[in-house]
Amino acid sequence: MDFLNTYLIYLIPVFGLIGILFMITKSAWVTAQPTGDASMNELAGYIADGAMAFLRAEWKVLGYFVVVAAILLAWSGTTVETSSPVIAGSFIVGAFLSAFAGYLGMRIATKSNVRTTQAAKTSLAQALKVSFTGGTVMGLGVAGLAIIGLGSLFILFYTMYVVNTGGSVNGEAMAKALDVLAGFSLGAESIALFARVGGGIYTKAADVGADLVGKVEAGIPEDDVRNPATIADNVGDNVGDVAGMGADLFGSYVATMLATMVLGREIVSHDAMGGIAPVLLPMVIAGLGLIFSIVGASFVKIKEETDSVQNALNIGNWASIILTAIATYFVVQWMLPNDTMHLTRDLDANGVLKEGSLVFTKNGVFGSIVVGLVVGTLMSIITEYYTAMGKRPVLSIIKQSSTGHATNIIGGLAVGMESTVLPILVLAAGIYGSYFFAGLYGVAIAAAGMMATTAMQLAIDAFGPIADNAGGIAEMSQLPPEVRHRTDNLDAVGNTTAATGKGFAIASAALTSLALFAAFVGVAGIEHIDIYKANVLAGLFVGGMIPFIFSALCISAVGRAAMAMVEEVRRQFREIPGIMEYKARPEYEKCVEISTKASIREMVAPGLIALITPIIVGFIFGPEVLGGLLAGVTVSGVLMGIFQSNAGGAWDNAKKSFEKGVEINGEMFYKKSEPHKASVTGDTVGDPFKDTSGPSMNILIKLMSIVSLVIAPHLNSAVNNSAHLQKEIKVQSMNVHTIKIEKKV
Amino acid sequence: MDFLNTYLIYLIPVFGLIGILFMITKSAWVTAQPTGDASMNELAGYIADGAMAFLRAEWKVLGYFVVVAAILLAWSGTTVETSSPVIAGSFIVGAFLSAFAGYLGMRIATKSNVRTTQAAKTSLAQALKVSFTGGTVMGLGVAGLAIIGLGSLFILFYTMYVVNTGGSVNGEAMAKALDVLAGFSLGAESIALFARVGGGIYTKAADVGADLVGKVEAGIPEDDVRNPATIADNVGDNVGDVAGMGADLFGSYVATMLATMVLGREIVSHDAMGGIAPVLLPMVIAGLGLIFSIVGASFVKIKEETDSVQNALNIGNWASIILTAIATYFVVQWMLPNDTMHLTRDLDANGVLKEGSLVFTKNGVFGSIVVGLVVGTLMSIITEYYTAMGKRPVLSIIKQSSTGHATNIIGGLAVGMESTVLPILVLAAGIYGSYFFAGLYGVAIAAAGMMATTAMQLAIDAFGPIADNAGGIAEMSQLPPEVRHRTDNLDAVGNTTAATGKGFAIASAALTSLALFAAFVGVAGIEHIDIYKANVLAGLFVGGMIPFIFSALCISAVGRAAMAMVEEVRRQFREIPGIMEYKARPEYEKCVEISTKASIREMVAPGLIALITPIIVGFIFGPEVLGGLLAGVTVSGVLMGIFQSNAGGAWDNAKKSFEKGVEINGEMFYKKSEPHKASVTGDTVGDPFKDTSGPSMNILIKLMSIVSLVIAPHLNSAVNNSAHLQKEIKVQSMNVHTIKIEKKV
Repeated sequence: MDFLNTYLIYLIPVFGLIGILFMITKSAWVTAQPTGDASMNELAGYIADGAMAFLRAEWKVLGYFVVVAAILLAWSGTTVETSSPVIAGSFIVGAFLSAFAGYLGMRIATKSNVRTTQAAKTSLAQALKVSFTGGTVMGLGVAGLAIIGLGSLFILFYTMYVVNTGGSVNGEAMAKALDVLAGFSLGAESIALFARVGGGIYTKAADVGADLVGKVEAGIPEDDVRNPATIADNVGDNVGDVAGMGADLFGSYVATMLATMVLGREIVSHDAMGGIAPVLLPMVIAGLGLIFSIVGASFVKIKEETDSVQNALNIGNWASIILTAIATYFVVQWMLPNDTMHLTRDLDANGVLKEGSLVFTKNGVFGSIVVGLVVGTLMSIITEYYTAMGKRPVLSIIKQSSTGHATNIIGGLAVGMESTVLPILVLAAGIYGSYFFAGLYGVAIAAAGMMATTAMQLAIDAFGPIADNAGGIAEMSQLPPEVRHRTDNLDAVGNTTAATGKGFAIASAALTSLALFAAFVGVAGIEHIDIYKANVLAGLFVGGMIPFIFSALCISAVGRAAMAMVEEVRRQFREIPGIMEYKARPEYEKCVEISTKASIREMVAPGLIALITPIIVGFIFGPEVLGGLLAGVTVSGVLMGIFQSNAGGAWDNAKKSFEKGVEINGEMFYKKSEPHKASVTGDTVGDPFKDTSGPSMNILIKLMSIVSLVIAPHLNSAVNNSAHLQKEIKVQSMNVHTIKIEKKV
Repeated sequence: MDFLNTYLIYLIPVFGLIGILFMITKSAWVTAQPTGDASMNELAGYIADGAMAFLRAEWKVLGYFVVVAAILLAWSGTTVETSSPVIAGSFIVGAFLSAFAGYLGMRIATKSNVRTTQAAKTSLAQALKVSFTGGTVMGLGVAGLAIIGLGSLFILFYTMYVVNTGGSVNGEAMAKALDVLAGFSLGAESIALFARVGGGIYTKAADVGADLVGKVEAGIPEDDVRNPATIADNVGDNVGDVAGMGADLFGSYVATMLATMVLGREIVSHDAMGGIAPVLLPMVIAGLGLIFSIVGASFVKIKEETDSVQNALNIGNWASIILTAIATYFVVQWMLPNDTMHLTRDLDANGVLKEGSLVFTKNGVFGSIVVGLVVGTLMSIITEYYTAMGKRPVLSIIKQSSTGHATNIIGGLAVGMESTVLPILVLAAGIYGSYFFAGLYGVAIAAAGMMATTAMQLAIDAFGPIADNAGGIAEMSQLPPEVRHRTDNLDAVGNTTAATGKGFAIASAALTSLALFAAFVGVAGIEHIDIYKANVLAGLFVGGMIPFIFSALCISAVGRAAMAMVEEVRRQFREIPGIMEYKARPEYEKCVEISTKASIREMVAPGLIALITPIIVGFIFGPEVLGGLLAGVTVSGVLMGIFQSNAGGAWDNAKKSFEKGVEINGEMFYKKSEPHKASVTGDTVGDPFKDTSGPSMNILIKLMSIVSLVIAPHLNSAVNNSAHLQKEIKVQSMNVHTIKIEKKV
């Protein structure tokens, strides 16, 4: 036990390594699976090539961004005492690992897709095994890399700035270590935003384009090999729903842990780890979550063709969550001290707790974690209700489709807006509850707890696009229908789980933002952010507007790119004779190129808005106004995120319902009927909502908060005023440091 | 001058009376105009009957509400010292006058419509004169009643609570007078919300229903006498765009004045009116605005058929604004004192100004008013850009229509979301600017200044629906095409001005909310509303969600009612032979009944949400959380209001552009083409956005703020704790009061 106490900090990256090892093993298993016939492999090859082409183009642009940002961060790090140019280094590491996580996901997905198709020739159980294992590789890769990265860098910075200077684990030294570590999170979230937006635009432009011409005009089914946009559509599943999502969750995972660590520094804890238990706890919980995700994944299997895939996934998911929660209880009991805890910001100048301050115990911390899990679960259930086939909201959209396109749209928008009520009430209750149990630290650790089983969540989220691709390959290779039925089964389940995953993500974004908020306020040295002050309210308005312009840019990008796609497809049908008769091969590459160029070009503006706005507002108008801005972005972003994701999901399933036939006012309607056409319109409108704009909201929120946190020292007038004085101290401490090193040697 | 100084307070209602006198004169003129032939009058009769039927049904429901609310207010008024049961009385007066203003508007509109049609047989100039005079009657009625009501009640309560008790004009006595006066505003805004929502649902259900079947299915033009929904559609113009808008602006006008008066109480002013100049100023400015609206209206005329109606309206509008601004300068110079002013809340316990407090001069006050006018003007310009034919946003929607319904919708949503950027930046700048010049009082009076020329604004807004009705009557009576051309010309201009009017309304709602906010904070006795406190952030989230559920209820109500309308129209076409051949008369009344029932039923839930939420949150969670809620509602409501109104306006004009033909990629498209059909879908979706949900946002915001202000004394723990002590004081002061009366006699 003593060994564990002393060396826990070094064990954290070991959790990550375990994850990577399992990832490698499972990846090898997938690669060893049979890949099917030549035609299948040719198509899989096109898809893989298209995906790599996109990633390369994206990395080129992101490379410039990372260099510029790193230079700025390095400069920023030298000008305040509470930071260091090393932050540029941790930024680069974070950006690199986030991009790498996306790359790994895309590689495994483009291997798993065709192997899933091949497996679907055998049985549903085998298809599930291949696709889900592929998803697990993605999940373990993301979680493993995140824990290794964050854990290792923490060891490094903790040693550099706290241990080697003899600094206090609750004081300036630790604050500096965590500020530099925040660079890692900043790098991860920046790449996440570009990847999610870029990937999202790509996938929807191709999807919308392929649908509009294929289904509506040429009358050929989705994924028909004659549709020039079909390869781009399948590539899109990989770059958007896999690579983009991988970077997204990598960034979120890291951000929630970081926020908790920053607040944890403010807890003076007489624990067995030398006082850093509150800082280590989130990473330990994440490590446990990874281990139990591996365990839970082993429960995901079915036997018969008629077994429920959804149930299998749910069992795996619940097993991971419950096991993690139980293990967390014991870990909390062990790590945290027995006495009551509080945040140092609640002490007055004499070191006495201010009146009305919240004190909490380790049981309270566990209580907050439980609140987080309850909130996440409720969010998933609510999201499922609003987007599931056969439930009232989707049924209402179907009914509205009977009177035309416009009423379908009105119905979907109404469902989306209404679907914000319960999640927001749950979120508000969650904020109250987690705060009640353990104050701001409780809110932060509730969010971290929600994200603990990210590996499992990602496995569940990623297996859907793999199955979607597998179905596309089956269709294009004209395999027997039962193959397509099996992949469709998996795809449908994948859509539902994707929606619930988004619910989790937006809830954790809201809680994490409050934590980052609180951290920001502490570092910026402000006491109050009063909303009825004119300048703060102005900031609140501008912040609220940011998700609107962000969404506008995303969805109009999709609209424009889709139009270009439609026109290219129409051109090919016009100018290449014989496509419809299977006599000529469509020019798939041209469509891939359109999507690639459009998405790379269009992702820049939204990304820059997210990064630059906090900097401008913070430096010109000050930290209180920036606080107002962040609050505005958070509230507006959460609402828009829920609204758009749920509206999109509901429209999608309203359209899907026609595949089996729906009854409206006693009459049955199937595909190609007028109501179905109206529902296709709704689905097309919902696409950019649910796959581009909606899921980007939670990254937008966190990224702007992290940027604010990183620049906060510059905004702290106290820090700046005493910069000159601190330079003196720095010189002296450097001498001390030098002496120390000499002694050690 | 001395006379004016002493009796200015009594002169305020005189402004209102002048307005009423002019209203009566112009109304008589309109009534004297020729009404046309029997068929025209029959149709006008149906429309008038349908409108009255709606209003009667609405009043019945509102009657119950007013009684219940008055009882609650009376009870509330007895339980705190800072209020009085008389508040129930001023509430009833406010509700009554708001409803009466709507009624007056509807009466004059249903007289003006057919007389405008008759005038359009002669010339465009005559048609404009009749329709605009009708609008002026509406405007003067609303503004006149508001000023009479607010002014008279202020005289009454000022006398009762301040003069007769010898209380201070800046102290508790005046606070009580203004709290009771707030009941008037509460009554006005409550009725405004129900009227705008109910009327909005009515008009859009009928409009959508008539369009869907008429244009799309039966292929008959809008306003064809064979369309069973056409009468309901025309009634809708009256109950939604006239009566609903009348109540809306009545409520807003009063709310902005009240908010300024409440803050004005905190200015210790050594002026010539006994210290109440800051409290009187907003009403005086409103009075000036009314007078100069009358003047400006006289400039609105054209000569030739080809003269620009838009220019004529602009000249009248600008004349009113500029003359009011000039007069306001002199009034401010006269009324306000020469020394610097500040709010009493910025004094510390020793009566010394706290550090960093804002002091201002009367020139500063005028500066704030100018800022308000600049903000309003910029908002109008920006709104016009986003919704006008031939400009980039509308053109982009037209282009997107060429690839189908879905891309048209995506385009419109993107335009709507993008259109929030500039207005929000202008608003933020306006908040900063008006605050810089005169603090919170400046923000409030900037909003009041924006609303000063409400009479003119309303005249411009109301003439559009009158012209719309006139066109409908011309069509249904099958008058010669040049009659319809003239009314269409007026209608098109009316649509544009309606959009800009909404821009003004939402801007003033934002500023007024900040003022009401500030007033609320003062009355509730709280010092800080910190957004990074967990409970306040929870309130912020819930507040942000309210406009979403409100919009969902509004637009799904329209969707459901429109579906019922469509099914009824389809039924009539099926079951009544000969309609299309002009052989049978459609059953107009059935459609009118559907719209009436649906809108009355559906307006209740949104209205109750607006009223009850602040009460629940305030009493259960306390005033800080309620403050967070209000901030959330305001930011989210302003954004949703701008988004929805502009998206709806842009979709509308995208559709209208096809009437003259549009060029897309070198090809011309006209009505009935595929792109046009897609644009009809967008217009239909945008209808509930721009006429039901969008315009209700600003009332929602203000109403919730006023409710909070009214219940604030109950939430003030200081007030409640000393309630027992204050009962003692009350008894004693009552005795003093009695003695005073005896002495007077």
